[in-house]
Amino acid sequence: MGKVYLIGAGPGAADLITLRGARLLEQADVVFYDALVHADMLALAGNATKVAVGKRCGRVSTDQRFINRQLVEAASKYAIVVRLKGGDPMLFGRAREEIAALEHASVEYEIVPGVTSALAAHAELGVSLTERGVARSVVFATPRVGSDQEASDWAAGVCAADTAVLYMAAGQGAQISEALQAAGMHARTPVAIVENASLANARRILTTLEGLRDIGDWQISGPALVCIGEVYGTRLRMAEAVTAAGEETAQALAMFSGRRV
Amino acid sequence: MGKVYLIGAGPGAADLITLRGARLLEQADVVFYDALVHADMLALAGNATKVAVGKRCGRVSTDQRFINRQLVEAASKYAIVVRLKGGDPMLFGRAREEIAALEHASVEYEIVPGVTSALAAHAELGVSLTERGVARSVVFATPRVGSDQEASDWAAGVCAADTAVLYMAAGQGAQISEALQAAGMHARTPVAIVENASLANARRILTTLEGLRDIGDWQISGPALVCIGEVYGTRLRMAEAVTAAGEETAQALAMFSGRRV
Repeated sequence: MGKVYLIGAGPGAADLITLRGARLLEQADVVFYDALVHADMLALAGNATKVAVGKRCGRVSTDQRFINRQLVEAASKYAIVVRLKGGDPMLFGRAREEIAALEHASVEYEIVPGVTSALAAHAELGVSLTERGVARSVVFATPRVGSDQEASDWAAGVCAADTAVLYMAAGQGAQISEALQAAGMHARTPVAIVENASLANARRILTTLEGLRDIGDWQISGPALVCIGEVYGTRLRMAEAVTAAGEETAQALAMFSGRRV
Repeated sequence: MGKVYLIGAGPGAADLITLRGARLLEQADVVFYDALVHADMLALAGNATKVAVGKRCGRVSTDQRFINRQLVEAASKYAIVVRLKGGDPMLFGRAREEIAALEHASVEYEIVPGVTSALAAHAELGVSLTERGVARSVVFATPRVGSDQEASDWAAGVCAADTAVLYMAAGQGAQISEALQAAGMHARTPVAIVENASLANARRILTTLEGLRDIGDWQISGPALVCIGEVYGTRLRMAEAVTAAGEETAQALAMFSGRRV
């Protein structure tokens, strides 16, 4: 009976996996990988059979059951089975369901943490999620908008933290903007949107909660974070200064603008 | 003029730094490191001068100014200057003050993210911070207890998220327990305390919000996280079952018990 390693691949860049994760990839017999894991990182697993178990945003629950079954079966054939998951396995990763399947089948497993994309995004922004005198709490959430009590509680929870990072939220910018303003957040609250954090095609857009309504204009297609709070105020003011002065270079826009780039 | 790399060392274990961070350590001319960074990781920086700039919990602000000045001075002497910070630089790391000093002195810098200790702790617990149907948001915060409005807002913010991870909180368990119960959180809410996440001397204690009052009994001296929410319920019930059955092995207690180990 082999062992299954659930490994956080990190935010995307191949060199942002941990040393432990990289060493296990080198020894792996088989690697089951997500849609968000890039070819450069898979290259670390030179000896392994690679199996794409791609899905985005966890929409198809039958897929999840199929992945669970594949992991258990692989452990009966191989010594080192790697399940490589984008970001960190324990944050929005649905690892719990895979762990339950492994425990049910009495398969040994170990979890290797990874850099979640919010941390990579803030390294690139140069903005701290927390800052003395400005923000002492940060909430990580997925969007939950609508007119019911659960959606209302969600908005209250996002407003209650000093900084909020919303995963898998780019498709619902308009509804998020509306829900958080209805819950009492100021329309001018700074917002940073980071697409493809840590990758060559990363984009950073600075805007406000009001401006988040127009997120559709930016045609975001990669994984993106919507980050909300006063910690983004300095970067937003820089963006506004740059665009007011008319210096709309691609670089300045990519880094500091709320406009389409 | 050299370049300063602010690198997240990760939670503690030497192999939980990123590949990027490890490669930069290997090339570094000088490394300024925190009290939470271990000797095994410093060994990666074979060619570098190592400078301890140890402080815990950011209590002494003069120290911070001294670190800022040292980083700027080092950049005028060395090509590759590394500032190695426990966890991730942008989460409870006070990187903002170091960045401001570097920007003010026109020193080039780059930030390399790290695995924050909450993610390592949950990999070891086998508990997801978020879980379908149980928790869709998690707040990371430092404690802020007392009788003023800010403390009351803090408690409301912690209660508003489905899961809460409190950094640097082990010293204030009794006050946190009281403040969160006063804000409406149920006394039986499951709590996991993780000390020295990712290290050989890691301890995990499962208890309830009510039991958190007695945190002083466990004599926690290392860096510790206080984790609160229904996601810890399964582990807590396992701990209670083990201790009720009298199987108080050191291993079971370390993993699943709310008792002193």
